[in-house]
Amino acid sequence: MMTGSQYEESLRKLNLEVYLFGERVENVVDHPLIRPSMNAVALTYNLAHCPEYAELMTATSHLTGRQINRFTHIHQSTDDLVKKSKMGRLLGSLTGCCFQRCVGMDALNALSITTANVDARCGTEYNRRFLSYLEYVQEKDLTCDGAMTDPKGDRSLPPHAQADPDAYLHIVEQRPDGIVVRGAKAHQTGAVNSHEIIVMPTIAMREEDRDYAVAFALPSDAPGITYILGRQSCDTRKSEGETFDRGNLAFGGHEALVIFDDVFVPRERIFLCGEHAFTGALVEQFASYHRQSYACKVGVGDVLIGATQVAAEFNGVAKAAHVRDKIIEMNHLNETLYCGCIACASEGHREASGTYMVDTLLANVHKQNVTRFPYEIARLAQDIAGGLMVTLPAEKDLRAPKTGHWLEKYCRGRADVPAEFRMRILRLIENLTLGAAAVGYLTESMHGAGSPQTQRVMIARGVNMKAKQALAKRLCGIPEGEGSDGK
Amino acid sequence: MMTGSQYEESLRKLNLEVYLFGERVENVVDHPLIRPSMNAVALTYNLAHCPEYAELMTATSHLTGRQINRFTHIHQSTDDLVKKSKMGRLLGSLTGCCFQRCVGMDALNALSITTANVDARCGTEYNRRFLSYLEYVQEKDLTCDGAMTDPKGDRSLPPHAQADPDAYLHIVEQRPDGIVVRGAKAHQTGAVNSHEIIVMPTIAMREEDRDYAVAFALPSDAPGITYILGRQSCDTRKSEGETFDRGNLAFGGHEALVIFDDVFVPRERIFLCGEHAFTGALVEQFASYHRQSYACKVGVGDVLIGATQVAAEFNGVAKAAHVRDKIIEMNHLNETLYCGCIACASEGHREASGTYMVDTLLANVHKQNVTRFPYEIARLAQDIAGGLMVTLPAEKDLRAPKTGHWLEKYCRGRADVPAEFRMRILRLIENLTLGAAAVGYLTESMHGAGSPQTQRVMIARGVNMKAKQALAKRLCGIPEGEGSDGK
Amino acid sequence: MMTGSQYEESLRKLNLEVYLFGERVENVVDHPLIRPSMNAVALTYNLAHCPEYAELMTATSHLTGRQINRFTHIHQSTDDLVKKSKMGRLLGSLTGCCFQRCVGMDALNALSITTANVDARCGTEYNRRFLSYLEYVQEKDLTCDGAMTDPKGDRSLPPHAQADPDAYLHIVEQRPDGIVVRGAKAHQTGAVNSHEIIVMPTIAMREEDRDYAVAFALPSDAPGITYILGRQSCDTRKSEGETFDRGNLAFGGHEALVIFDDVFVPRERIFLCGEHAFTGALVEQFASYHRQSYACKVGVGDVLIGATQVAAEFNGVAKAAHVRDKIIEMNHLNETLYCGCIACASEGHREASGTYMVDTLLANVHKQNVTRFPYEIARLAQDIAGGLMVTLPAEKDLRAPKTGHWLEKYCRGRADVPAEFRMRILRLIENLTLGAAAVGYLTESMHGAGSPQTQRVMIARGVNMKAKQALAKRLCGIPEGEGSDGK
Amino acid sequence: MMTGSQYEESLRKLNLEVYLFGERVENVVDHPLIRPSMNAVALTYNLAHCPEYAELMTATSHLTGRQINRFTHIHQSTDDLVKKSKMGRLLGSLTGCCFQRCVGMDALNALSITTANVDARCGTEYNRRFLSYLEYVQEKDLTCDGAMTDPKGDRSLPPHAQADPDAYLHIVEQRPDGIVVRGAKAHQTGAVNSHEIIVMPTIAMREEDRDYAVAFALPSDAPGITYILGRQSCDTRKSEGETFDRGNLAFGGHEALVIFDDVFVPRERIFLCGEHAFTGALVEQFASYHRQSYACKVGVGDVLIGATQVAAEFNGVAKAAHVRDKIIEMNHLNETLYCGCIACASEGHREASGTYMVDTLLANVHKQNVTRFPYEIARLAQDIAGGLMVTLPAEKDLRAPKTGHWLEKYCRGRADVPAEFRMRILRLIENLTLGAAAVGYLTESMHGAGSPQTQRVMIARGVNMKAKQALAKRLCGIPEGEGSDGK
Repeated sequence: MMTGSQYEESLRKLNLEVYLFGERVENVVDHPLIRPSMNAVALTYNLAHCPEYAELMTATSHLTGRQINRFTHIHQSTDDLVKKSKMGRLLGSLTGCCFQRCVGMDALNALSITTANVDARCGTEYNRRFLSYLEYVQEKDLTCDGAMTDPKGDRSLPPHAQADPDAYLHIVEQRPDGIVVRGAKAHQTGAVNSHEIIVMPTIAMREEDRDYAVAFALPSDAPGITYILGRQSCDTRKSEGETFDRGNLAFGGHEALVIFDDVFVPRERIFLCGEHAFTGALVEQFASYHRQSYACKVGVGDVLIGATQVAAEFNGVAKAAHVRDKIIEMNHLNETLYCGCIACASEGHREASGTYMVDTLLANVHKQNVTRFPYEIARLAQDIAGGLMVTLPAEKDLRAPKTGHWLEKYCRGRADVPAEFRMRILRLIENLTLGAAAVGYLTESMHGAGSPQTQRVMIARGVNMKAKQALAKRLCGIPEGEGSDGK
Repeated sequence: MMTGSQYEESLRKLNLEVYLFGERVENVVDHPLIRPSMNAVALTYNLAHCPEYAELMTATSHLTGRQINRFTHIHQSTDDLVKKSKMGRLLGSLTGCCFQRCVGMDALNALSITTANVDARCGTEYNRRFLSYLEYVQEKDLTCDGAMTDPKGDRSLPPHAQADPDAYLHIVEQRPDGIVVRGAKAHQTGAVNSHEIIVMPTIAMREEDRDYAVAFALPSDAPGITYILGRQSCDTRKSEGETFDRGNLAFGGHEALVIFDDVFVPRERIFLCGEHAFTGALVEQFASYHRQSYACKVGVGDVLIGATQVAAEFNGVAKAAHVRDKIIEMNHLNETLYCGCIACASEGHREASGTYMVDTLLANVHKQNVTRFPYEIARLAQDIAGGLMVTLPAEKDLRAPKTGHWLEKYCRGRADVPAEFRMRILRLIENLTLGAAAVGYLTESMHGAGSPQTQRVMIARGVNMKAKQALAKRLCGIPEGEGSDGK
Repeated sequence: MMTGSQYEESLRKLNLEVYLFGERVENVVDHPLIRPSMNAVALTYNLAHCPEYAELMTATSHLTGRQINRFTHIHQSTDDLVKKSKMGRLLGSLTGCCFQRCVGMDALNALSITTANVDARCGTEYNRRFLSYLEYVQEKDLTCDGAMTDPKGDRSLPPHAQADPDAYLHIVEQRPDGIVVRGAKAHQTGAVNSHEIIVMPTIAMREEDRDYAVAFALPSDAPGITYILGRQSCDTRKSEGETFDRGNLAFGGHEALVIFDDVFVPRERIFLCGEHAFTGALVEQFASYHRQSYACKVGVGDVLIGATQVAAEFNGVAKAAHVRDKIIEMNHLNETLYCGCIACASEGHREASGTYMVDTLLANVHKQNVTRFPYEIARLAQDIAGGLMVTLPAEKDLRAPKTGHWLEKYCRGRADVPAEFRMRILRLIENLTLGAAAVGYLTESMHGAGSPQTQRVMIARGVNMKAKQALAKRLCGIPEGEGSDGK
Repeated sequence: MMTGSQYEESLRKLNLEVYLFGERVENVVDHPLIRPSMNAVALTYNLAHCPEYAELMTATSHLTGRQINRFTHIHQSTDDLVKKSKMGRLLGSLTGCCFQRCVGMDALNALSITTANVDARCGTEYNRRFLSYLEYVQEKDLTCDGAMTDPKGDRSLPPHAQADPDAYLHIVEQRPDGIVVRGAKAHQTGAVNSHEIIVMPTIAMREEDRDYAVAFALPSDAPGITYILGRQSCDTRKSEGETFDRGNLAFGGHEALVIFDDVFVPRERIFLCGEHAFTGALVEQFASYHRQSYACKVGVGDVLIGATQVAAEFNGVAKAAHVRDKIIEMNHLNETLYCGCIACASEGHREASGTYMVDTLLANVHKQNVTRFPYEIARLAQDIAGGLMVTLPAEKDLRAPKTGHWLEKYCRGRADVPAEFRMRILRLIENLTLGAAAVGYLTESMHGAGSPQTQRVMIARGVNMKAKQALAKRLCGIPEGEGSDGK
């Protein structure tokens, strides 16, 4: 297992083509807007070496029997699934942001199931290839980007019917030694901090979309891959020098648009190639795992709740009944989220491949709540943080003699707490509710692992309505089957 | 293990003093307002003999190694705790009401912990007595009422300071062979369907309240015990003859005020007697178990969701987008509740006595949601059920020739569904949202196992705010310990 | 203007054919299940004679210049509309239930507009007939039922395509002196307390539904009209003798199914007869007025909030911070509803007929909130009322010596408040949240004046989305018209 | 009345001492972070010259009879109050941000009442001074900052007991020709765009705080006044050049901390000076007016709803049932807010001074909803806007040839809408939900005109609970006065 600094060195060896503000980024690792996100991933390496976190952060490879970072592990029990949820909360709470590495873990686990299923039905050898690749990832302790979301173009049309055939990533050439693909994957979390990129299709497909039914893995710097970084709220505060105006001093996240411009994939790295009938299941498996992964937001919630309590104390209002009640409500909502990511894990089951899968219904229910509760927690945080949130001056004003004097005097709450501390904690709350981390805590909570409506569709599918209707009919004396044509 | 009919016969042998509408009930078992609640308890006996439910409904006694009804079992693992939650949902879904037997199970488990803890600290022998009693309950397969809530009088005063010293149940006489107690226990679920009544104190107590720190068990028909049944919404519909106006044809619940008018308790049935320091823990343990028990409302929710879907189909609107979306929302809320009762169980832990206890924080979070979501589910059910809910005529109108003709014609939705079926399902929805079962699904969801505010107090206690504050401070650069006097 | 007792006498002279529990009701006025609803209507007569309420309860007829009961008035200004809202709140607060008379007022006002519009376009004389009828209603101070909702049968089919052609009320014969109609009107509020019934179509219709496009007025006891009363939660408590178990001692509501079995309508009472193009507007006008009328629920909310505060005081918890906060929330929601019924009135406008119409968008917004907030207010009331709500014994138990003794002792909260008072106030809260009045406060709030979805459709129609899109485009620099084909 | 460009010129003549990022701002009007907020104020001048807006934007001075900008008007009728609300919505919808000028209007109106009341009771001449000042403001068409909020220090202590006596602004010297004041006013909206600053006390005060009971007006560039600008989310995007990454191209808001470092106030501009008994009423009047002023957020909501609809159309999902339903919900919430600001105005009343005051209870109810609904509207906007919100590249990426090519291809939704348009509308949604305008639409909606708890206190005061309790008691038969000691 690598350490954080080994990880950082390994990234320096990559030759990524990354763009930001229309210009190529020369030094990705040290770029001020990217480095905080690298720091967050590095923590997933460092913690694996801490004895107190070893149980959550590491696992025993079912391939090699060696201790590996859990982010490269294939879940072998419901206990593994529960630990994954707890690891997510832990890292969310330590970074206060998106630490990016779960998406690759989810891609690996989903592929471990699907490749076995395809092979069993089609006589292919995807699972052998996959396990060989998995061993490579585990041994090298790599960070993988799991890339599913295509730009999609016009959402009312299937892939093959799009005006631009590249709106979904697809095979443009079959070669004896592999395939050539073209297209893009949108909003890829942590893409430029990854060694590998694992590509999967984004929707259930039919025969006509065969060329779009493709899954594979590539080094992140394979020729033809381009990264365009997305902007975040308050992103440039990270390049304003080391001020606390950024709120979260060390950590952040990033997302990028990844372009595949006729990229060659060698045969051994192809895990699905035209078997369109399996795309729906693969999407569902990845999505279910990834919806569980929103356990991390519980950890970010812990930070925001803690910050709010600190702000209340610095404001001198922590004992007001309404403040205490709001803090309870924030905790209640946050722990309700925790129940979701624990329950979908502890109710998991074994797939044919031996991999353990979460309870799909509960994972969707969990994610649906993640699209709601963080917004309410953030609203309550802004409530308690107080009006100074609206107008907090810059750290530079605190450092300049004249304005600094005034701020010391007038940005102070409780007399025994320096204005600087109050400003720091309010900046963190701003970061989480309006700033760079809000993109992760709110917007990504809304859209990551599928937008809210996709979870509702899965909830509708996951509940057994016929059984519920039978229960009701029996209790009030309607013969079973009567009038239930679902009209 | 008894069957349902053996259970019914066993109740006939009791000599309970029960009052209703100011009059003594001569035949408790067959009284039309009580029998539906007896039917619900009987189902807990019958299902234990069904092979398909055996895993949930039965367990192996840790005392005797024999198969017992799970309602008399002491939880030996988190798996037992999870099965308890699932048994609750199952029974809620099969009865559509409160089946009453969980409260005794929760009392037994709480006492198994506390009696061991008191003995360890005080050198008493409560645990030996308790285990002897437990074996008796398991062998006879008895239904126990777990009685905690005192009338409380003026809530701003402790027990000993009340104007009426009996506002909390207390010891009025110490005898060589036992004690004499006086007081009452309020809103006792299923009291008159129980063989035994297990009494516990209702709040944490101090030295001055020593006489109130008492726990014991008695046969439900011990001399001096009187039951006054509470009224429920639409209760007398059960005595209108066998019409479907009652909504739920077979099942119901009941609650009673239980008076202890100088009742003698033999020494062997006393499990706490003056050790006030343990009352707080006992209350918390029982409350946590009982908050988990609100798993049953998920099952009642299943019935209401099923009934609503049936109504939508009978109304001919089941495919309307807004109806489908509301059904999804009902399921989403119901499954969010399910996550709570599963998570608090799977995150349980072993107590010193060997008993497994749920995660207290998550059990409180679960129950808090139970005070909210059923109300919203009920609101959505009324929405979809449609305006006929407001004005549905009686079954007698359907049976009378003239009005029956009109109802067949004008209370019909889809042409292929008889008006009677539509009326039956709307009566069930009325039963669950306004009628007799609404008392259980809504009012009892609010107040059972403690009112909402008690859970909020426990949530405040259960979260580690200091740790969360430390996380926040580290991320924004405030030295730990600064300004955190909680002022 | 009649007094309440003159009104009661006038009802005794009617020869209504009313059924309940499958039997004809011989004495409608004195039937214990109906009389409370008559009392509520009677109050609309009595208050008109109280000087302190005269400004709200009376108006000056624009036809005769005489002082009339506002319930028979055609709104002549926005001030009239605002007073209508305030009258609704007043009466809701004094009766704690549905006082039933608004629906006729809304029918009269809607017809005053539509008849004028039809005449202007079609050269008919409906408005002359209507004004003659209106003068009769005003002079005699009559209570009218405004009957719109048809049973509707299969909701996916228009009237003429129904399996049963009577699923919507329609003309079955044209005669020289009038028409003969057949069908039914469902859930008619206060029907058997009305002198007149005013029938209107329930949906927008097309040419093929011409025979269904009919509006008219008839005496409520016209030959061929039959009333079947709907059941309410806890309805029979009203016939249990004069106990306080009914909660609200004097007042209640009722709804009935009204059958028209080939009923003759004389020409002078026909206000629409085949002009299908005007049905949509008539429905919209009536619905908008009637959605405003849900101002009454603010008054019922006043009662429930007051009752909850009394219960909190009797329980001894009125000063607890969480109780005070919940009372504030109940008031906040109730006053938000008030804002809706005031705003839609004060923003009203003059129609061609001279009648003032509410702002349609805001009236729909108001009613949509009425389908939500009362449920939350009721939930909070049950929260504060406490656990005794679950298990309150009957008044008869209080009156019987043995049980009465126990209840005096154990149903008491604060020592200085007799148990009886506490029981009374909890029964009132039960009445409003689960009992007979809950049908009005909750279920009817949901479905009265159209189910929630109908308001959403109207909100979508009422807002100017194109204007909002133009605002947004201008601010971010997208040329107007670009990409807005609404695809 | 000035035009926008005359207003801009008038600002150039001011000599304000403004700091930002620790440095003095040399040219306030043209500073890229300030100019958008100046543009928003300028619109309040320009619109007053547009005939189609004249009715809302202008009024007739009750002092001079001349046409004046409504922002300098004293409300003479409820019609004036309603127009104020509509003017707020109009300007919010045209600027998409806080246009800052309402706070001065609210200060003028509150002082018009209080100065008259003080004079009547104390024989002072504040009202004469005030009217003379008002005429000056009206004739010059000035923008005033209404400055109420003090830094407050430790919120558990009154002004005179603070560790730093300057935590609340106070009189430090009485001179024959005026007074000298010291202190600060926090988060002053639009401060550096104002000609005048009107200072008022921020809480009800007692005798000991007499020196803090002071109200006055000064030119904004009076000697000793310093402005420190607060940072906003994404503030520096405004200085990135003219890219659309700022979202809202022309408009924005700002808030500042205003320091009074021993500033002299001439006698003629003093409107309260030690009459502490009137501070509570003054605060309440100003707060009520200013809570009404949150009518503007309805207009900002219009922009966000419009932007969301545009995004839905550009994404090709505008016709999906769930999208339409969410748009309806956004409108429903926005129009519910509108009801609040209309109702509190139309229910206004005349004060002794002749000024019309809003209904205080409803104004507080309105503002309380403003602390909730915009957050939910913003959440729904982020939902519909889609995942591209998370990762949208910079405009510079669109302009650079290589990345621009990819963005044209992969940031496109509907094929007929250029990627640029889609990017622009998503940036506007970002601006309103996470960016600079979110500070106004969300954080300021939370804290402006007092934090949520202050409104709850006022709601508790504003409702007549005794009357509600009497209603409830009468209906259930409890004698009035029984048990209502509010214990």
